[in-house]
Amino acid sequence: MPRIVVEVMPKPEILDPQGKAVNGALPRLGFTGISQVRQGKRFELTVDGPVTEDLLAEVRRAAETVLSNPVIEDVVRVAEEA
Amino acid sequence: MPRIVVEVMPKPEILDPQGKAVNGALPRLGFTGISQVRQGKRFELTVDGPVTEDLLAEVRRAAETVLSNPVIEDVVRVAEEA
Repeated sequence: MPRIVVEVMPKPEILDPQGKAVNGALPRLGFTGISQVRQGKRFELTVDGPVTEDLLAEVRRAAETVLSNPVIEDVVRVAEEA
Repeated sequence: MPRIVVEVMPKPEILDPQGKAVNGALPRLGFTGISQVRQGKRFELTVDGPVTEDLLAEVRRAAETVLSNPVIEDVVRVAEEA
């Protein structure tokens, strides 16, 4: 069955405590070379039928209203998974 | 500065209560046509220098040890962001 991936990230101006915590842990564990970490969400939606433009539009609406909080988050990707 | 994206999903055999909650909410809010939802994580790592094979290997190691719990999660993608 086809799958649509939706990805959501905190807006750049929003503090991201989870990302900050990971960023602090990396050098302590020996991982260098990474200067910033931001953490968001990835949803995999399994859909019933073929991925039509209508269905993608519906998923985009769901992404903006249910899967993300538009005040603090941006939907960065809505795409059918290969 | 270059960015590397790491994506992590719960393993298929692992129960995913967040995904289940979203899946239950969608039809109540008028979104039909989606039969399953699974929720994972998306990390954006900003790196200092150019994205070399060595750096990607280091990020893959970090993804397997710090960014995911290999008992219950799979790293599904590690890639430089265009």
